[in-house]
Amino acid sequence: MDSLPKRDANYVPLSPITFLQRAASVYADRTSLVYGNTIFTWRQTYERCCRLAAALQQLGVMKKDVVSVLAPNTPALYEMHFAVPMAGAVLNAINTRLDATAAAGIIKHADPKLLFVDYQYMCLATESLRDGEAAGSISPLLVVIDDLNKPEETRIGELHYEQLVERGDPEQRPPRSVDDEWDAITLNYTSGTTSSALKGVVYSHRGAYLSTVGLLLQWGVGSEPVYLWSLPMFHCNGWTLTWGVAARGGVNVCIRTPAADDMYAALSAHGVTHMCGAPVLLNILVEARREPLLHAVEVLTGGAPPPAALLERVERLGFNVTHAYGMTEATGSAMVCEWRERWNALPTSTRARLKARQGVSALSLADAAVVNNIDTMQSVPRDGTALGEIMLRGNSIMKEYYKDTAATASAFRGGWFLTGDVGVVHPDGYVEIKDRSKDVIISGGENISSVDVEMALYQHHAVREAAVVAMPHPHWGETPCAFVALEPGFSCLGEVTEEDIILFCRDKMPHFMVPRKVVFVDKLPTNSTGKVRKIELRQRLHGCSQSAPGDSRPGSALAGKARL
Amino acid sequence: MDSLPKRDANYVPLSPITFLQRAASVYADRTSLVYGNTIFTWRQTYERCCRLAAALQQLGVMKKDVVSVLAPNTPALYEMHFAVPMAGAVLNAINTRLDATAAAGIIKHADPKLLFVDYQYMCLATESLRDGEAAGSISPLLVVIDDLNKPEETRIGELHYEQLVERGDPEQRPPRSVDDEWDAITLNYTSGTTSSALKGVVYSHRGAYLSTVGLLLQWGVGSEPVYLWSLPMFHCNGWTLTWGVAARGGVNVCIRTPAADDMYAALSAHGVTHMCGAPVLLNILVEARREPLLHAVEVLTGGAPPPAALLERVERLGFNVTHAYGMTEATGSAMVCEWRERWNALPTSTRARLKARQGVSALSLADAAVVNNIDTMQSVPRDGTALGEIMLRGNSIMKEYYKDTAATASAFRGGWFLTGDVGVVHPDGYVEIKDRSKDVIISGGENISSVDVEMALYQHHAVREAAVVAMPHPHWGETPCAFVALEPGFSCLGEVTEEDIILFCRDKMPHFMVPRKVVFVDKLPTNSTGKVRKIELRQRLHGCSQSAPGDSRPGSALAGKARL
Repeated sequence: MDSLPKRDANYVPLSPITFLQRAASVYADRTSLVYGNTIFTWRQTYERCCRLAAALQQLGVMKKDVVSVLAPNTPALYEMHFAVPMAGAVLNAINTRLDATAAAGIIKHADPKLLFVDYQYMCLATESLRDGEAAGSISPLLVVIDDLNKPEETRIGELHYEQLVERGDPEQRPPRSVDDEWDAITLNYTSGTTSSALKGVVYSHRGAYLSTVGLLLQWGVGSEPVYLWSLPMFHCNGWTLTWGVAARGGVNVCIRTPAADDMYAALSAHGVTHMCGAPVLLNILVEARREPLLHAVEVLTGGAPPPAALLERVERLGFNVTHAYGMTEATGSAMVCEWRERWNALPTSTRARLKARQGVSALSLADAAVVNNIDTMQSVPRDGTALGEIMLRGNSIMKEYYKDTAATASAFRGGWFLTGDVGVVHPDGYVEIKDRSKDVIISGGENISSVDVEMALYQHHAVREAAVVAMPHPHWGETPCAFVALEPGFSCLGEVTEEDIILFCRDKMPHFMVPRKVVFVDKLPTNSTGKVRKIELRQRLHGCSQSAPGDSRPGSALAGKARL
Repeated sequence: MDSLPKRDANYVPLSPITFLQRAASVYADRTSLVYGNTIFTWRQTYERCCRLAAALQQLGVMKKDVVSVLAPNTPALYEMHFAVPMAGAVLNAINTRLDATAAAGIIKHADPKLLFVDYQYMCLATESLRDGEAAGSISPLLVVIDDLNKPEETRIGELHYEQLVERGDPEQRPPRSVDDEWDAITLNYTSGTTSSALKGVVYSHRGAYLSTVGLLLQWGVGSEPVYLWSLPMFHCNGWTLTWGVAARGGVNVCIRTPAADDMYAALSAHGVTHMCGAPVLLNILVEARREPLLHAVEVLTGGAPPPAALLERVERLGFNVTHAYGMTEATGSAMVCEWRERWNALPTSTRARLKARQGVSALSLADAAVVNNIDTMQSVPRDGTALGEIMLRGNSIMKEYYKDTAATASAFRGGWFLTGDVGVVHPDGYVEIKDRSKDVIISGGENISSVDVEMALYQHHAVREAAVVAMPHPHWGETPCAFVALEPGFSCLGEVTEEDIILFCRDKMPHFMVPRKVVFVDKLPTNSTGKVRKIELRQRLHGCSQSAPGDSRPGSALAGKARL
């Protein structure tokens, strides 16, 4: 059994590139992508990617070089997910919602050889590059991505995306397989809200391949999917579905922004079967429409648990929601709330509660543990109550944080990746996240999940937004403080007072969990991906503008605070 | 990008064992297996596998040892698919339909340390071992598998399966991951019909993992499948579904034999959603039932294209058939006839024709080519007419033929695995197999697909079975000869003559394809897996009992004959 070497015929390094090569062969004449009036087949998409890869190499792009891109969900951004790694390089898709300073920070850190910029983001890009130049970093070569649907408009810039596609030698095919499946394929920056928190997550070809296949299977993406690009591709490479749609030979429906009109128009025009988005996207969908869809659409949501009322409304329209939990470091989904047939018979509220859970580990993971002691790796009991930190292990976990050995060292421990998220395990094995470890409030030795308190606050009819953070307390160490934004028509001066909120909470939870203070705000501060900036709320309470120690690294904050 | 080492947290060797470990955690209390009155949960199945693995090690089973088993689809055979590799050993599930001589040949070649035998196959096993001993081979230790549903019956034998499960230390957990994903996991003997054709196909953990995930995805095995074990697990490890059901946390419904009554009883008792089998199994299903099923059942079929009439009848009952093409060397499916929604609108006969095609390459393959020249690797045009040999490349291709460097060397060429099957590519990219390369008839330089001639013969109302082989011809080199078995009530002495058949064929095909000779038989000779033994038919024509040169290796036969 020992003398059986690997051969070209039976050992092919895992890479999502093979999905495109296969699609070009077996789904050759099927539609790969629709973007306004632009339609490509899988043969064409592959051809274009080969040409672009060849052109990148002509421009001097070498193996392991970084190529950055600032673009919405256009054909170019989709193609770059294959063409850049086909040239041996590493794709870095930058969040287009960042400001120039944040984008400049990423460009400086990633140090790309080329920067591709959609025409709409030229101002952001040039501003970022000016910032970067001032800071002494090298300027990448800039390539402008024009709008395929508006070829008549001439844009600024020396080098254009379509020129490169045209220039690439169509005969210069990429190698049949990558050298090493452990090679980097993409570099994704997490949505850190301070420059010190900027972390570049590196994926391998192997991790990307396995994560893609796992998600397709757990989400149940069957044959001939029509996928609407409502989720930005710069989020974990579109939760791996950039590659996933190629694996299934589906149709990519590209839209520049997830506006309700554009999404509904695409749903009916192209017979969309699948789409993704954070709960805020579900909100956009329900607010724009009353009548049910003509065909069911599968929606994968994540980033935050979808609230019950929202789930009910969106499902009534004909969207079938699957809830997943993930993070950039886990190549998208780390858990999927796999739905059970028998749950369909339960009352709406129970179903919503079950669906809001993060679920069971992704197939691409070997293991997910919820432990109450990182040193002994003691798992919490499956009682739905005991809090523990979620740890992950498997091929979908990132290689490392790019150029950041300190952050990498604190993210990995004892053969596990520390998520910094705190949750419980229900008797049926489903995990429910209760908090970020840094957001857990420790009051008199008791752990309080800020999310539990927030969920109670959301039950108050006048509460539109709620966030709970730890407030220093001389006796208890910490105690909860609630930040609340009221629904239009309500005011904290009249209808709803701090005392009302506190009394409301007393009915809903143990006394030690009840916020001691309620701060009314017009709107909660959020970052570019829509997450509440709790650090800012804590700073307001502390009355200082510096980061609290450990805030940049959730995992270490937990460890520094107390063992859960 | 270079300095990013693999870590325990982000690099876990691929192995189907992780599917069971994960199932024991996330699907702990769900039913894993039903066998008569015996029901296990995934926690129990994992526990039993851990115990068995520990017991195997206590018995001295070492890494890379072979452990053989002769059993129908029982819980024991299912568990051994995990427990044996968990102990580091290699599982060899032997075809129970073989005779003692053939089984002895495998045991001698595989040289297992242990041989597990279901009580029903004790005679076959003891006879095989006697044969083996006479031939001077070492006897493996024999373990009897009793029937879990009949615990009161005492069986012969010193060592019993349940004793081992009981004896294994429950605290002795297998390692969290295998050492090397390239290690062998199983050894499956192909259904060679002569002892010289006996070939042991070795799978790696990696290949098994990727093939499993790929098939689940392409067959569309969703959440909570209930899988009926109608296909023997000794066929490519149940076309990888032994491992696949664990990956999806489904229910394994075990039955000892695929008898119609047992299958229909299981379908209704357990709400079966998925099952597999060769077209002969579909025949069993349609012959035993008239009224439609109460719920749809997905059936994966392969081994031979399902005939149109059969497809129509089985689908009318409520079975939804997916056709796949595969072979032991490709870890089960190598192609899947992915069904397209729009084909549902076509007439029944057209749908049957489309479904009889072998389809598009498996996701676990990097590539499948149909070439008309092995040396230049020139692909055939996509015209549905030009014949070429099917070559495969990818992670689902076997490691090698065990202890057979000659057979291995002729199976691999230029970075490809040669299937020995000959087919065409249709304009939509779907492949259709026309013949085994050794069965292609070369008449006056023209390639004749024996399958095409057989399909025409099957259209004759009196033909029950048909097989066409090459017959030597002084002028044309070769010419087709048909072996035909008639439907009951027809006789070649009266109603149907050789001339009738030949005239019938003249209407259906070009003159050079028409059989020059028709031999009437009562029944075609088949091997243990139901395949027609064309070699025996050719021997009858040649009037000799020796193999024709090249018959043991289809690929080389083709090469030795003529380039297609």
